[in-house]
Amino acid sequence: MTEEIVKGCPSTLGDDVQLNTTTLIRHAARTHSEQQIVYRKPNGDWDRYSYADCYARIKRAANALRGLGAQPGDRIGVLDWNSHRHFELYWAIPGIAAAMLQMNLRLAPEDLSFVVNHSETSYIAVDESLLSVAEAIAPKLKHIRGWVIMSDKPLSQIDTTLSPIHHYEDLLAEAEPEIDWPQIDERSAYSACYTTGTTGAPKGVYYSHRSIYLHAYSQAANLGMSINDCTMLITPMFHGNCWGLPQSAVLMANKIVLPGRFLADEIAPLTDALIAEGVTIANGAPAIFQPMLQHIASLKEKPDLRNARLLSGATEPPLSMMRGFSELTGAQVVHAYGATETSPMVAMNFPKPSLKETLTEDERWDLMRKQGLPLSGVDFKILDAAEKEMPFDGTSVGEICVRGPWISTSYHDLADSAERFTADGYWRSGDVGAIDTNGYLKVTDRIKDVIKSGGEWISSIDMENAIVGHPSVVEAAVVGIPHAKWQERPLALVVTAPGVTLTKDDIYELLDTSFAKWQLPDQVLFVDEIPKTSVGKFDKKHIRADHADDYAGA
Amino acid sequence: MTEEIVKGCPSTLGDDVQLNTTTLIRHAARTHSEQQIVYRKPNGDWDRYSYADCYARIKRAANALRGLGAQPGDRIGVLDWNSHRHFELYWAIPGIAAAMLQMNLRLAPEDLSFVVNHSETSYIAVDESLLSVAEAIAPKLKHIRGWVIMSDKPLSQIDTTLSPIHHYEDLLAEAEPEIDWPQIDERSAYSACYTTGTTGAPKGVYYSHRSIYLHAYSQAANLGMSINDCTMLITPMFHGNCWGLPQSAVLMANKIVLPGRFLADEIAPLTDALIAEGVTIANGAPAIFQPMLQHIASLKEKPDLRNARLLSGATEPPLSMMRGFSELTGAQVVHAYGATETSPMVAMNFPKPSLKETLTEDERWDLMRKQGLPLSGVDFKILDAAEKEMPFDGTSVGEICVRGPWISTSYHDLADSAERFTADGYWRSGDVGAIDTNGYLKVTDRIKDVIKSGGEWISSIDMENAIVGHPSVVEAAVVGIPHAKWQERPLALVVTAPGVTLTKDDIYELLDTSFAKWQLPDQVLFVDEIPKTSVGKFDKKHIRADHADDYAGA
Repeated sequence: MTEEIVKGCPSTLGDDVQLNTTTLIRHAARTHSEQQIVYRKPNGDWDRYSYADCYARIKRAANALRGLGAQPGDRIGVLDWNSHRHFELYWAIPGIAAAMLQMNLRLAPEDLSFVVNHSETSYIAVDESLLSVAEAIAPKLKHIRGWVIMSDKPLSQIDTTLSPIHHYEDLLAEAEPEIDWPQIDERSAYSACYTTGTTGAPKGVYYSHRSIYLHAYSQAANLGMSINDCTMLITPMFHGNCWGLPQSAVLMANKIVLPGRFLADEIAPLTDALIAEGVTIANGAPAIFQPMLQHIASLKEKPDLRNARLLSGATEPPLSMMRGFSELTGAQVVHAYGATETSPMVAMNFPKPSLKETLTEDERWDLMRKQGLPLSGVDFKILDAAEKEMPFDGTSVGEICVRGPWISTSYHDLADSAERFTADGYWRSGDVGAIDTNGYLKVTDRIKDVIKSGGEWISSIDMENAIVGHPSVVEAAVVGIPHAKWQERPLALVVTAPGVTLTKDDIYELLDTSFAKWQLPDQVLFVDEIPKTSVGKFDKKHIRADHADDYAGA
Repeated sequence: MTEEIVKGCPSTLGDDVQLNTTTLIRHAARTHSEQQIVYRKPNGDWDRYSYADCYARIKRAANALRGLGAQPGDRIGVLDWNSHRHFELYWAIPGIAAAMLQMNLRLAPEDLSFVVNHSETSYIAVDESLLSVAEAIAPKLKHIRGWVIMSDKPLSQIDTTLSPIHHYEDLLAEAEPEIDWPQIDERSAYSACYTTGTTGAPKGVYYSHRSIYLHAYSQAANLGMSINDCTMLITPMFHGNCWGLPQSAVLMANKIVLPGRFLADEIAPLTDALIAEGVTIANGAPAIFQPMLQHIASLKEKPDLRNARLLSGATEPPLSMMRGFSELTGAQVVHAYGATETSPMVAMNFPKPSLKETLTEDERWDLMRKQGLPLSGVDFKILDAAEKEMPFDGTSVGEICVRGPWISTSYHDLADSAERFTADGYWRSGDVGAIDTNGYLKVTDRIKDVIKSGGEWISSIDMENAIVGHPSVVEAAVVGIPHAKWQERPLALVVTAPGVTLTKDDIYELLDTSFAKWQLPDQVLFVDEIPKTSVGKFDKKHIRADHADDYAGA
């Protein structure tokens, strides 16, 4: 479409009714007052309350925040697990036209304090179990006017250096029960979430009421959510709006399950709750779903989860996991694709009816591993190294760029971010992939991991996989090194099995079948060890720095 | 919510990406190019084409309209059945920022010409079978610059007095295949539909791109539409956007079935097509679904329609019909509520999971006859005779008023319509009803049929039903007659069985159990006949006029 906005004849509809998230929770509490929200308390017990009761607390929380002095446009942080109080603040903070800062409790203190300062956050609601995280950053914070402690214990039993402090439950008890919600300009920020990009400082994505509202509709429609569904929020609520599920679940008046604080060794009670409460929708990474499946495999009686759709993101779900859930429980693992900058859903994998008939079972499973079908409302564009738009033919790869009402067009208070967006307003995902003729997106690389050589791209991941295919290779990393003529040229680091000696020619021979001559690495270095980051990934930044001048004379 | 719009902190999202219907069809054609649209041709044969082929024709149609001189803001009429060409124009006309005038081919010529003139429509696309309808109004039209004939025959074989004329297929063949769609201000009109109110001239409702887009999402989410669905458009496409199904079906990339022109005696082939194509969603009035059910009952092998949701509106679906579909085919009749002014969906009837367990089967069926659950996004308010807001308790009745992004806030170019809206922007439906504690709406009366007496309402329909309960009463009409002190007082006209004489006291005795003394009709007139309209309804306007002065001296 062209960029200019064309006006037609005026409409007679309520076009000025603002898309506000308050509308969603108020409607749900009024029309579905009896619907339940189940939550896990800090002591591990489960409790439940109705939408009506939850909404009554939301109204009090909103009044309490106003009482503290919160104004439209303020930022208010939340440092909490997936608790019922966190859920209440998802509505109370944006409801008074403040923006909720989503605080990733796993960030390093310097990053977390940067995020709080950059957003000029004035109040933070913190769960008692996370006081130490708050205390670690408190001295560095510049705009904080107060802390709201969330705990089942009275304030007198809370031991903290934070100041000044308030108690969430006391504030609610003292607050007015009714509220006249403001109608909020739909382009105002609903919440702020900062990226945890590996390069540079965290970047602020400020979602709007409008974007959250539209994303909720898209998700509800695409997941086929209805009042019969029960949604469990497993993804942390400080991660990209918990993937938008809190809002879409309320839009469709789902029963909601909030597992509170749970750790890697508590997968069993989490899974048991999922089964007992009749969960039909949940979100998480394979790192959560994989052990859940193992727990289910250990159960004598396998649960019937035929209505369940497990929204899986972050990394490609392993095929064995997808098949395992299907075979043991009937649950469908739905591979979803997105990022903090995209609210986050932009693609979801559902089998098309036309393909169900034409594909073999193995082909169908292979299809399910792709990132899925772009969602209506999001424009996709694939740009090659020369910024040329690629066809959707399944083989033409390029950087995936997206645009739409719930996609970022800038970062908060960050002047120097033009390179993350195209001139016509698409966000550059940093992912390299292709869309096939059936419409399915497949992500193949991170763009920082592809080697840009003479206007073409070489996939470092494909090359690494090919080299590791050699029986005597233990591991291999391929990076692009600056080159005067070709911009970048590949360099391979190879670790061989003890006692085995390989040559560059051996590697060339190995790569010969799947790579063109011009794509082969100029250097193949046999090393004892490949530099790694603290989480065990190849530290390609480090490797590139070590070899920055290797091709300088070429 | 308050009326003032409060601004928060600016967001960083793509809030300026306009909600345009072009986005929906373009996405569907790109990502679901293979999906089918099945249509019935004028000769009764069925044909089909893909979304990709349909979209190719839409682009040509849009270019062709531009070629004729159509400008953003123009109104272009369509006079057609549910054909594939009509479907194409649903996207081509709004796609160039013109507004599509929905022309009700059953309107009287004076009303239809009023609608065309009032909207200043400049071009009309007319199906060959409706040339006589067009010719009847053509001499009265003031702004028409041309006619586009839609036919499978060449223009040389078309015999018409219309002028100047173009041929749809010729225009498409000559048009450019590609188009650079404008990005349209989402508050611009997408289409115009005029009410066929019984009082006064038709009133123009101009839907916006924004309202249509949001309505499509709401409908898709609430009907649980997915790529596995097949939608048949039975409601005429000139009736309130065909209830929004063309847009929601495209949003979710449904297979679509367009039955073209079909008449009351063609229910059998329509039903057969519904079964053969695997339709899972269809819209219509009980007047269509009832004979469909009869046809199905006559089939030796009953079809399995367990996935089908039959969206039924206009009047309350008979219980026997809802049960019949369920028992014979498994299909669910979904009672939906709305009006031209509401895009039209504002409530839909789905059983809540909590009620499935607590209600008996008969109670569940009774529940399904209600108008259903208000949809998220639409604010409901029930106002009594004194404009006081009523609680949602199931017994407090009042006028149903609605507000939201797809609800009218005015009529096109009609100054004198303030009485149809509340001061805070709700549209007054003219329906009287209640919302129960479970959230279900039940409409009991049209407000023009309730009698306003001393600030209270008396239901004329309830009173008529009670009087007809007498074994010797053949029919009865109750109307409100102006009264100096009480505003209105009831008057009853009663037709008794031949040879039977009843008195006012007999009627009072009959009403004694269900009506208060002050509600009883001041006059009960025994008459030979009750005046009726051309479609056989009581002509209450006529009765009121006849008896306008009856209570003048009271």
